[in-house]
Amino acid sequence: MALVVQKFGGTSVGTIERIQSVACLALDSQARGQDVVLVVSAMSGETNRLVELALQIHPSPYSQEYDLLIASGEQVAVGLVTLAINTEAAKRGLIKKGEVAAKGLLGYQVGILTDSIFSKARIQAIDTSRLQNLIAHRVIPVIAGFQGVDPESNITTLGRGGSDTSAVAIAAALRADACEIYTDVDGVYTTDPRLCKDAKKISRISYEEMMELASLGAKVLQIRSVELAAKYALPLQVRSSFNSSEGTLVVSQDLLGERMEQVVVAGVAADDAQVKMSLQNIPDGAGVAARIFGALSRASIVVDVIVQDVPSNGLLTISFTIGRSDHLKAREVLEELRAQSFSAMRIAEQAELAKVSVVGVGMQHHPGVASKMFQILAEAGINIQLITTSEIKISCLIASKSMKRAVECLHQGFELHRVD
Amino acid sequence: MALVVQKFGGTSVGTIERIQSVACLALDSQARGQDVVLVVSAMSGETNRLVELALQIHPSPYSQEYDLLIASGEQVAVGLVTLAINTEAAKRGLIKKGEVAAKGLLGYQVGILTDSIFSKARIQAIDTSRLQNLIAHRVIPVIAGFQGVDPESNITTLGRGGSDTSAVAIAAALRADACEIYTDVDGVYTTDPRLCKDAKKISRISYEEMMELASLGAKVLQIRSVELAAKYALPLQVRSSFNSSEGTLVVSQDLLGERMEQVVVAGVAADDAQVKMSLQNIPDGAGVAARIFGALSRASIVVDVIVQDVPSNGLLTISFTIGRSDHLKAREVLEELRAQSFSAMRIAEQAELAKVSVVGVGMQHHPGVASKMFQILAEAGINIQLITTSEIKISCLIASKSMKRAVECLHQGFELHRVD
Repeated sequence: MALVVQKFGGTSVGTIERIQSVACLALDSQARGQDVVLVVSAMSGETNRLVELALQIHPSPYSQEYDLLIASGEQVAVGLVTLAINTEAAKRGLIKKGEVAAKGLLGYQVGILTDSIFSKARIQAIDTSRLQNLIAHRVIPVIAGFQGVDPESNITTLGRGGSDTSAVAIAAALRADACEIYTDVDGVYTTDPRLCKDAKKISRISYEEMMELASLGAKVLQIRSVELAAKYALPLQVRSSFNSSEGTLVVSQDLLGERMEQVVVAGVAADDAQVKMSLQNIPDGAGVAARIFGALSRASIVVDVIVQDVPSNGLLTISFTIGRSDHLKAREVLEELRAQSFSAMRIAEQAELAKVSVVGVGMQHHPGVASKMFQILAEAGINIQLITTSEIKISCLIASKSMKRAVECLHQGFELHRVD
Repeated sequence: MALVVQKFGGTSVGTIERIQSVACLALDSQARGQDVVLVVSAMSGETNRLVELALQIHPSPYSQEYDLLIASGEQVAVGLVTLAINTEAAKRGLIKKGEVAAKGLLGYQVGILTDSIFSKARIQAIDTSRLQNLIAHRVIPVIAGFQGVDPESNITTLGRGGSDTSAVAIAAALRADACEIYTDVDGVYTTDPRLCKDAKKISRISYEEMMELASLGAKVLQIRSVELAAKYALPLQVRSSFNSSEGTLVVSQDLLGERMEQVVVAGVAADDAQVKMSLQNIPDGAGVAARIFGALSRASIVVDVIVQDVPSNGLLTISFTIGRSDHLKAREVLEELRAQSFSAMRIAEQAELAKVSVVGVGMQHHPGVASKMFQILAEAGINIQLITTSEIKISCLIASKSMKRAVECLHQGFELHRVD
């Protein structure tokens, strides 16, 4: 019997009505002969509400108790979805009194073991015995996404969008046939439809392209979940819980078929939550970069683009970008570093930046994509602050206020409005 | 060193400002040399919000997943209070970077083992090892009230007001010197001040009186917590988290001192969430009452007053009262019983009832309290539907709409406005 893990995001469980739809959808899948496991996020707005409360107490509240706090959002959704499935199953006559059709499970109850890096924990192992026992009895496990438990039985969370990673990790551990990610959009688009009205739905996309799109802000799937799916060659179906559209299938490159020959650029991504930090007057020497980025890494700060200038008078300037949420923490780390080692270092910061990128597995065999991108931005009068490239993407850092226009021009320039 | 368990109710953690006061209060107690353990309820309004969500899915949602759902309210409060204590402790220079002054713990993390009667679970054992280890290191454990874990590691909840019971059980298990219950009133009053403006604060009250007042709706302490405190002779201090008033000390009768000789009636209690169920046309016979109340008890429905009339023509009428929240479940149980055994039984229901009671250890040595109570109600033109008495209380069931007036007249009639 086919086993499918279905993950429902915040908007898919955002109201009681939506939760009742999820219950029907899961029971319908079961009725079609599938074994079903659900993974749910917090109701939309709930995590933000909890974060807001914590921020009123401390400007940088990330800690063990912060994870305990925000993990409660998924707990609420698990309780309500489980209640809705059991209620609907009784209505359909699928269960007798005293029986259940679904059972709610939190991270620690499943046995989703993580490390102890609070707010950004990584899954280390998943105990599938309890889940397999429920599946064998045709009971739908309803699992809290986004959370796990560390070896000291503290609650941990996996970072924003972590429920996607929970779903894929559970699907991989159970050797599921597929993982369906239900969200409020009906698939992956050539760019964010909120930024460009010509955005088109992509029917198939490779894990690699999806990773670049996700990390750059396509906001549909957490990048770690795509990495994990690629590792286990697990097909990911991104689809809407609001309609029955097929959505987008994320698979390995060899399963892309026709598409790859025709399309050079698959999509345009944009992320406006960028902060650039420039460290000036650093003495040049071996190991300087390692010390700076080592300190940031120990504080669990993810650094994106890094640029180092040619030293002048034995002094270096190193610039890098980070996400806005790490801004305060990064400043703290750098000020400590200055106090300890680099007393002359100047820290310059620039917020209000955005990164726009074009992504496509086609471009590695296709010259001229980079120059075309710079040309398009130049014609639109948009100044480029930093450039970074990989085999399948080119990114430019620009002012936040120009982001929407940059996306529209790139989408048009690379003829993405013609994708069908 | 004195060990004190401090419990903070919903209004005491109802806003971020209040949560910060709780943090200061706990650290102040520690600074005075006390070892402190905190037990917290959900932020006021939170549990109702969660219950409301569940009721939109099922009219009688009480189940395993319901407990999982509503236990999240305490989790939020634990996270925020812990964060507030650690933030305040850092501000006061009590902890260095990487150290903590408090650690948040959920029911399962402490090891608060309960039975599996969801929504009304009872504590069976508390593992104190983790708590004692934290206390030894001067770290304040911040524990989620109201919740525990059953032998299958399901989350259970202890029923409304269960955080009081959590606090007393933890204090008893730790052999604490005292348990302080912080709430939004500054002590126990001769009656509910919202019903009667002449209500006076009682400085000392016996466990027995407190139990009667609590069960009858004084709403300050959950009755089970008082039973438990009496069992372990644990002094309970009820006080306000909004001011530094001494509050009310709940102790054993022998510690009441002077008061007992002077006061006959200690307080007037009222509870307007009563439903009367009358079962008519039941064949008289041995074991009939046992079967009816056995079925209700198996459904975890708490029955209060029971009245059985003299049988006429071999047919019985049995009436009893239950809390409003059990109304639907009780009706289900009774209809099933009728289908199985008592086909001629008629079920009559009367909601909108209230119970008013006078309570006092003095009345067992003092004749005439009952007749005086009936006299006062009669003079106020209030009709009595049921009467029940014990050694230290007399209760009358009346119409809800007359409750406030009944309380005022009884408070005045028994001269409780003269208590100092």
